[in-house]
Amino acid sequence: MSELYAARRTRLRDRVAGAGSAGALISRPANVRYLTGCAPPGAALLLGPAEDLLLCGSPLSGDPSEGRPAEDVRVEVLPTRGGDPVVAGADLAEKAGAELLAVEEHHLTVTRHRALSQVAPRLRLTDLACAVEAQRLVKDDDEIACLRIAAEIADQALGELLESILVGRTERHLALELERRLVDHGADGPAFPTSVATGPNAGRPGHLPTDRRVEEGDFLSVGLGANYRGYRCEIGRTFVIGTTPSDWQIELYDLVFAAQRAGREALAPGVECREVDRVTRHVLDAAGYGERLGPWTGHGVGLEIDEDPQLSPAAMGKLDACVPVTVEPGVHIPGRGGVRIDDTLVVRPEADGGPELLTITTKELLAL
Amino acid sequence: MSELYAARRTRLRDRVAGAGSAGALISRPANVRYLTGCAPPGAALLLGPAEDLLLCGSPLSGDPSEGRPAEDVRVEVLPTRGGDPVVAGADLAEKAGAELLAVEEHHLTVTRHRALSQVAPRLRLTDLACAVEAQRLVKDDDEIACLRIAAEIADQALGELLESILVGRTERHLALELERRLVDHGADGPAFPTSVATGPNAGRPGHLPTDRRVEEGDFLSVGLGANYRGYRCEIGRTFVIGTTPSDWQIELYDLVFAAQRAGREALAPGVECREVDRVTRHVLDAAGYGERLGPWTGHGVGLEIDEDPQLSPAAMGKLDACVPVTVEPGVHIPGRGGVRIDDTLVVRPEADGGPELLTITTKELLAL
Repeated sequence: MSELYAARRTRLRDRVAGAGSAGALISRPANVRYLTGCAPPGAALLLGPAEDLLLCGSPLSGDPSEGRPAEDVRVEVLPTRGGDPVVAGADLAEKAGAELLAVEEHHLTVTRHRALSQVAPRLRLTDLACAVEAQRLVKDDDEIACLRIAAEIADQALGELLESILVGRTERHLALELERRLVDHGADGPAFPTSVATGPNAGRPGHLPTDRRVEEGDFLSVGLGANYRGYRCEIGRTFVIGTTPSDWQIELYDLVFAAQRAGREALAPGVECREVDRVTRHVLDAAGYGERLGPWTGHGVGLEIDEDPQLSPAAMGKLDACVPVTVEPGVHIPGRGGVRIDDTLVVRPEADGGPELLTITTKELLAL
Repeated sequence: MSELYAARRTRLRDRVAGAGSAGALISRPANVRYLTGCAPPGAALLLGPAEDLLLCGSPLSGDPSEGRPAEDVRVEVLPTRGGDPVVAGADLAEKAGAELLAVEEHHLTVTRHRALSQVAPRLRLTDLACAVEAQRLVKDDDEIACLRIAAEIADQALGELLESILVGRTERHLALELERRLVDHGADGPAFPTSVATGPNAGRPGHLPTDRRVEEGDFLSVGLGANYRGYRCEIGRTFVIGTTPSDWQIELYDLVFAAQRAGREALAPGVECREVDRVTRHVLDAAGYGERLGPWTGHGVGLEIDEDPQLSPAAMGKLDACVPVTVEPGVHIPGRGGVRIDDTLVVRPEADGGPELLTITTKELLAL
């Protein structure tokens, strides 16, 4: 594993050197973890022309969910209590004679950036922009293996919930039970706050669980994901509670299912991100639900639950092989409820069998 | 309640006007909630000379944990998909003829700040700095009432855990059970990730639960808190598993208890924050544990779990009445474990009975 992280840092170092900087200071936690294997709270990676230094505000906790630093990364714990590792990094870079240092302006606040300039007045700060995020876009085999396990864990947790009695239980309880099951099956934790939405809440994107209890005849929509070694997947399903779904429920479900399938089937290397969004959206738009849709219908996943690429009307760029994305259209009708269906898939060329579905729980409309 | 939020905004508006700005743009979520009653993800408050506008990227979800906007706050949902409410706020301020706008430079990233300048090139941006945080320092009766309920919930959840069988259960399971109980008792959720640490992990600050199981003879340290209507409290206790604590456990416990009591007893209006830290730290320092202490021994709580004031050696400023703080010294001995004791208290003058202890679970060393 150590070579993997070293290779990632070498790639970034080459890029930084190509842009004229001798070093870079990485502060966004997911980027620090991607490059070192570990991201203690507030840590910063000083990527020097020679040595790489992980600056930490306090000793490593050893918690597995924090990751472990690659062997060849030197870890330095700041001696000053409460010091900012990013500021310490700028100070070190200046003392090492660097003239130009690339920093993550999309992560540093204005105040923190100013503190860097103050501690290292001779250092010229440039913008690294989203160079590390761009590097994280296409996943390697190890990363996809982690995502695959994360998806398996989420499928197991969801499968077990479906076997239990649901009527009368609150959204909050179901969400907590799902999170417990994720951990039971080996997750470091939930990938994001688990969403359980019943009745009129069903289908609302990112709905946070309330005390509403599951009732007969409800739509029940669930969104969850596991965090496995830092990698986060996402699955969303909608069910009906009781014996038979009513007509409007079947119609709405079939429609969202058709939209989600269209999106999944559009995934291929070389396809424009906005094209995947368009075909997904089009199905719902044609049925008159266009106005109810959110700003995107899917997004990348990895060390963060919401990363590039975005599948949205304004998205730039094309899909690549080995990019994991969600496809997650949904419709919510105020007062009645709605449907969301969400999968995590890895983009693969046709020759490799097309998109790889990681979250394999059935998408039939189950009546529970 | 609406008047309360209006009064807070008026106070801020006066301050901003006094500094020469016609308006302010508030983006830090806890600050937005403090001033409007509600903080949808990514929302921004444009505090104008006359009207106040809450700019949201998507419609309000209605989730109780998000809060509800005060009646006199006008809510505007951005029509543009995926637009940034902060950028929209700067645009609106410029169009309304403002020349100077105060923004939260400690919250805005360099990239976002630049986007503001680009959309509103004639607007001069100044730094609001931590004006809202300063206003949030002293809590009113409603805020303290919320904290009191949050503490009660945490006490109940912890009390129930102590009545159950602990040996053989993992840290992760105990943490999840505590979080479920918090929600059972009316919390909107945990105030921060619940920490359960057994054996050699016990006493480690912010330890994240692992799969280690509780064993006879372990120290067990637990840190948890409830989020009630946005207000967050904190409690930490350490127990011994089995019939009789061993001598080193009793000694270490008594020491940390003495330190924590010293800190609690030092709380009074007008006392320097660093003095509270000093008396707490001194007890542990004198026993040779000074090097093992973290950068602070307590901090403010409120809409965020870690807010001003900080109780640390370098802290500036004095305590005021009605400021809620934690007092939470701890010692961790690598390989053996340790002790943390953490309470949330409200600073009160002697005449009112001295500091008000919100988290009332016993601090005797219980053998469970």
